[in-house]
Amino acid sequence: MKLAVIQMSMTNSLRQNLEKAIAFVSIAAKNGANLILLPELFENLYWCQVQREEFFALAHPLEGHPFLSIFQKLAKENNSVLPVSFFELAGQARFNSLATIDSSGEILGVYRKSHIPDGPGYAEKYYFNPGDTGFQAYKTAVGHVGTGICWDQWYPESARAMALLGAEILLYPTAIGSEPAEVASPNTHVAWQRAMIGHAVCNAMYLGAANRVGTEVIHGLSQTYYGSSFICDYNGEKIAEANQSEETILYADLDLEKARSHRAGMGFFRDRRPDLYAPLLTLDGKTKR
Amino acid sequence: MKLAVIQMSMTNSLRQNLEKAIAFVSIAAKNGANLILLPELFENLYWCQVQREEFFALAHPLEGHPFLSIFQKLAKENNSVLPVSFFELAGQARFNSLATIDSSGEILGVYRKSHIPDGPGYAEKYYFNPGDTGFQAYKTAVGHVGTGICWDQWYPESARAMALLGAEILLYPTAIGSEPAEVASPNTHVAWQRAMIGHAVCNAMYLGAANRVGTEVIHGLSQTYYGSSFICDYNGEKIAEANQSEETILYADLDLEKARSHRAGMGFFRDRRPDLYAPLLTLDGKTKR
Repeated sequence: MKLAVIQMSMTNSLRQNLEKAIAFVSIAAKNGANLILLPELFENLYWCQVQREEFFALAHPLEGHPFLSIFQKLAKENNSVLPVSFFELAGQARFNSLATIDSSGEILGVYRKSHIPDGPGYAEKYYFNPGDTGFQAYKTAVGHVGTGICWDQWYPESARAMALLGAEILLYPTAIGSEPAEVASPNTHVAWQRAMIGHAVCNAMYLGAANRVGTEVIHGLSQTYYGSSFICDYNGEKIAEANQSEETILYADLDLEKARSHRAGMGFFRDRRPDLYAPLLTLDGKTKR
Repeated sequence: MKLAVIQMSMTNSLRQNLEKAIAFVSIAAKNGANLILLPELFENLYWCQVQREEFFALAHPLEGHPFLSIFQKLAKENNSVLPVSFFELAGQARFNSLATIDSSGEILGVYRKSHIPDGPGYAEKYYFNPGDTGFQAYKTAVGHVGTGICWDQWYPESARAMALLGAEILLYPTAIGSEPAEVASPNTHVAWQRAMIGHAVCNAMYLGAANRVGTEVIHGLSQTYYGSSFICDYNGEKIAEANQSEETILYADLDLEKARSHRAGMGFFRDRRPDLYAPLLTLDGKTKR
């Protein structure tokens, strides 16, 4: 199977963004990819840079969603699995969600981002409820795919949970860039890759992350997204990597059978000790169960 | 505070190994280190390369242990915190244990290795019970120190648990080397570092690993330990690293206050979702609680 990871820039035009995303997916499929990852919330500029009521209107219910059906058609036409990020309205709640579309065009499920960041330039707690779906791994036509979303990628818990639920590939659509001047760590892109490379090693599986690029200005505030999208193997070796500024499609042939053999041989999942992991189910390390 | 990580080779002479370990610790302390990490089971060749009854005799109870008191005296004399690996006999059970000695000479606690490997050249399941202490973080004179042992270092669960229990530095005494010819992955040292670098990033804290070096022959079998001991910072940046063959002492000045500030700023521990982590407490992802 062949994984493609799309790194792209966005504008404030939904139409432009959709056209670009569709074009990239079509090219990737033409080049043989059957699992294609777009970045997080590619429908617009990363509006979480600011806190403005107007952006709540971007949320739509899964049923009758304005553009998910376009990608369902696209997935089917191209015989490709396509996880698609969208701003989900559900009753009075709003989620940073991901619909994983199988190559049949069917939506296999919706994952709602579990870990919601907050800080200068990343005001997600203003827009999104913390997800309530739990972690997900979907049995797609091309393999068992675990989908996290952006901030989830810093959490060993989400990677491990997806692996335990059967994932053999971990995918992370992302929107991350340089931090505003008031933040001490100016550019996190190296640490960002290291965290995920660690997940790939510890869970002995392939991993891909798709980030946006470009400088986006919203209401006078500016933020530059650092790309650095990549695909790594089950040893954490990067097998495809984008730079910090250009739109591109990354490709990698994944040998899931080889990964499976390596994973069993390493024995990580044989030697786990759930009987000792109770502190993980607390915030402060003090078991209250 | 200053961390020292000792990379050394061993012989089959307890006396030689002790003399060397003591000499290295003394040098490290003279050079200003007040937290000094020795490798795993430095008392002997890595006997888990083979399965032989004779090696069970190396296990001794904590009370009246043949060499722990020497290191208690050494820690006190040098005003240094000293985690010391030993083969522990406890009733009919045997553990791969680590006594963390405070700079007062007091043993703050014993951690028993939780994750026990098994495979060609690493027959630890033959010698050790899986540890029953749970993960540990000790409030030492120089900071809150979490201690894992070797195979634990591949497990995000142990790193996270130590962090949740208060650790601000993660330490791993280790015995790892090239895999025997029948194993597909010939040299894991890059992946080995990547796994721990991931823990350092995801838990936003300093980390050190002390490995052995040299080729050891036991009962005609030979294995070469790959060193590559290192210290990294809270961004996963290596700040000291040994090569694959030489004995050495690594040093790093750790700024725990800066790490604490970075850790809070990143927000990893603010956004955790223990309500969703139930799969982590299972072996197969199926929650039975």
